[in-house]
Amino acid sequence: MSLDSVLARIDQEMPQALDRLMELLRIPSISTDPAFKDDCQTAADWLVADLQSLGVDASKRETPGHPMVVGHVDGDGPHLLFYGHYDVQPVDPLELWDRDPFDPVLEDTPTGKVIRGRGSSDDKGQLMTFVEACRAWKAVHGTLPCKITFFFEGEEESGSPSLIPFLEEHKDELSADIALVCDTSMVSRGVPSIASQLRGMLKDEFTLTGPRIDLHSGHYGGPGLNPLRELARIVDSFYDAETGRVAVEGFYEGVHEVPDEQLRQWQNCGFDEGDYLGTVGYSQPHGEKAYSTLEQQWARPTLEINGLWGGYNGVGSKTVIPSKAHCKITCRLVGDMDPDALRDKIRKHVQDRLSPDLSVEWDNDLEGSRASVMNIARPEFESARQALSDEWNREAVFTGMGGSIPVVGFFKSILELDAMLVGYANEDDQIHSPNEKYDLESFHKGIRSWARILDALT
Amino acid sequence: MSLDSVLARIDQEMPQALDRLMELLRIPSISTDPAFKDDCQTAADWLVADLQSLGVDASKRETPGHPMVVGHVDGDGPHLLFYGHYDVQPVDPLELWDRDPFDPVLEDTPTGKVIRGRGSSDDKGQLMTFVEACRAWKAVHGTLPCKITFFFEGEEESGSPSLIPFLEEHKDELSADIALVCDTSMVSRGVPSIASQLRGMLKDEFTLTGPRIDLHSGHYGGPGLNPLRELARIVDSFYDAETGRVAVEGFYEGVHEVPDEQLRQWQNCGFDEGDYLGTVGYSQPHGEKAYSTLEQQWARPTLEINGLWGGYNGVGSKTVIPSKAHCKITCRLVGDMDPDALRDKIRKHVQDRLSPDLSVEWDNDLEGSRASVMNIARPEFESARQALSDEWNREAVFTGMGGSIPVVGFFKSILELDAMLVGYANEDDQIHSPNEKYDLESFHKGIRSWARILDALT
Repeated sequence: MSLDSVLARIDQEMPQALDRLMELLRIPSISTDPAFKDDCQTAADWLVADLQSLGVDASKRETPGHPMVVGHVDGDGPHLLFYGHYDVQPVDPLELWDRDPFDPVLEDTPTGKVIRGRGSSDDKGQLMTFVEACRAWKAVHGTLPCKITFFFEGEEESGSPSLIPFLEEHKDELSADIALVCDTSMVSRGVPSIASQLRGMLKDEFTLTGPRIDLHSGHYGGPGLNPLRELARIVDSFYDAETGRVAVEGFYEGVHEVPDEQLRQWQNCGFDEGDYLGTVGYSQPHGEKAYSTLEQQWARPTLEINGLWGGYNGVGSKTVIPSKAHCKITCRLVGDMDPDALRDKIRKHVQDRLSPDLSVEWDNDLEGSRASVMNIARPEFESARQALSDEWNREAVFTGMGGSIPVVGFFKSILELDAMLVGYANEDDQIHSPNEKYDLESFHKGIRSWARILDALT
Repeated sequence: MSLDSVLARIDQEMPQALDRLMELLRIPSISTDPAFKDDCQTAADWLVADLQSLGVDASKRETPGHPMVVGHVDGDGPHLLFYGHYDVQPVDPLELWDRDPFDPVLEDTPTGKVIRGRGSSDDKGQLMTFVEACRAWKAVHGTLPCKITFFFEGEEESGSPSLIPFLEEHKDELSADIALVCDTSMVSRGVPSIASQLRGMLKDEFTLTGPRIDLHSGHYGGPGLNPLRELARIVDSFYDAETGRVAVEGFYEGVHEVPDEQLRQWQNCGFDEGDYLGTVGYSQPHGEKAYSTLEQQWARPTLEINGLWGGYNGVGSKTVIPSKAHCKITCRLVGDMDPDALRDKIRKHVQDRLSPDLSVEWDNDLEGSRASVMNIARPEFESARQALSDEWNREAVFTGMGGSIPVVGFFKSILELDAMLVGYANEDDQIHSPNEKYDLESFHKGIRSWARILDALT
């Protein structure tokens, strides 16, 4: 009964909820680029003010990087910690956006209304689903449903450098019974999903140096070592074309096969392979040939090249043999893969393949995080699964996830806190890409879903 | 006697000659980048005015690209056509320059005074050696030594798109007995050199497209085809690591071995392999293992990668699988290699290696030119060789050259004009690189050398 009033309030408040989200989306809080440092501050201030309007004791906490936002509200029943991040990915290549990434708009599309703009899905839109659910609850009941700690980060897209020290320093303040995280997607349109495992992440970057200076390809073309050619050789050596496997020695240490039982579940969780591949222009999967698309995405590790550059890339041509070539790498980790051990293996692989007169430098400021598996035996998972099934009129499923949410591992290792990941994004949201969007249905039903979950947990 | 007066005049006029060169170097006439279109006009205007000050009937000739400068002066004896180019290479990476590339300065270095700045060596400094020789001659004799046509181009560094139509349209106006070209270097410091053969050039550029849009490496890492990884695979497939040869089928068609007699000459021409490699940080040659460094540079073809880029190259990291990857190529051609046929072979090589879901687009606006061999049996070559030997107190030599000067081929095919290439640059001039320089000795003795050659030819 009281849940119905909260749900009704949510429906009626949608225009205002949308306005609030648009306001937040207009703040270009790109965390990877120092040029947007002030905007990250602005986004944090905006969230502090919004939480305060809910009667939450909220404040901005400075870090060496971008600030955290922490808010507390007291109450009976379980103590929930809700996590989201207010920072967003860079927007390049800007020319591929159909509009200003930070001038969000509600658009009609063949699959329904969408909220278009950077961060609409990852993660501002998802973060606000929980906040709006709390707002509606408060409007109906005068209080929030239980004791809640709000914890918003501003460095998720840049490796969360300040997260570990902050968690360690505020261990007591951030203690709770369970963490709720809204930063994941649904396995398929309309299929409510709880992520039961996440891949970990390793980031690295190297620069190859050949000649001391850029050279003229007429004077040195032939005798001259070209670092771009060397980079291609080394990057290609990372892979075995036959099997699609990574060829770095020891890369698969700590990787486990998916149990048959879980594999069966996944095969029936509503994942639409054709839609998943087709929507981005693929006719087939391109990973390890011995594994299904779902396993390649959720249960197998990767070594991905995220950036490659060197020489001349301007208008026209330049007959140059450049001095340097650059490469950005990320690996997705599964099972018990150890990021630090893997970093050493990759660096050794490159070191072992350097030609005479070729040297390599590594960026040593990049983070790594292990994969994590959720404790779905906890009763909150079944309660949430039921609540989601009710809202979406479709059996909610436990899924794997290809992405990485390092905070989940740190909640466990530092705060001894289990996390439950519920998100409403769709695979076609184009997060980290031009023209990112969040379905209005994801936003609306997402808010309603949290209201139902809060009701079920309290 | 009168030659001595001209040489004396040159020595005495050096400060003014240097001021004039500095003026020309301050004009950022980068031809490959449309942003500098007006500066190319300014450089052409400057040259027209300077030639007119010598009593030359000079004018700027517009083209679809950057203008040509043509000047005529009448006289007895042979009819010489002098060619140089006033355009320069781009300056990136700008951060590697010790000063503004277009704020030239005279610097003291361990190997003597140098003129530092973009274009100081390639080709403004070299072009002005001939103009200053004419100026001194005129000051002493009241006239220039013979009938001379001056022909300055502004698109040499961008593939000379307007050159062929211009030569065809002005075939009669540009006819002469022989062309003199000052755009080459000396085989070794202090060793006067006449280039007897040049490599040709083929330029091409391609873009690989994988997914329709940039992808999140968490959502698609594994099943997703990554065009950066594909680009590395394809670029690596261009080469045979064992032999150092290019692995494109039919690449070496039209390549001839160097005759033993010529090889012996080259081996004794004063080329210092250790200096040539060591000055840029190489401990050994990196080309075809079956050939000497000199052959790799002068007599063997190359397939060089001048630019590679795709994905994220900004500050921090971005977990992206990009939609596109880009590659700029130039080939140096020798013997009878046909640029058009070679272009087809390279494109077929790439086409044959595309994975499913990977497509390629080629830039079709890039030029090619064949290699050329000079007609050193003409008497002018021996006269010039003697004049150079006198100036440098060192036997002048006929050398090969790794660079490409397409205009030489077009002079022959369109104007039926033989060319003689005499230049005073040094291998360490860092042309096409940051901190380009031209030795003051090259400039001074270069001017004196042209005076001696003019005297010898008339």
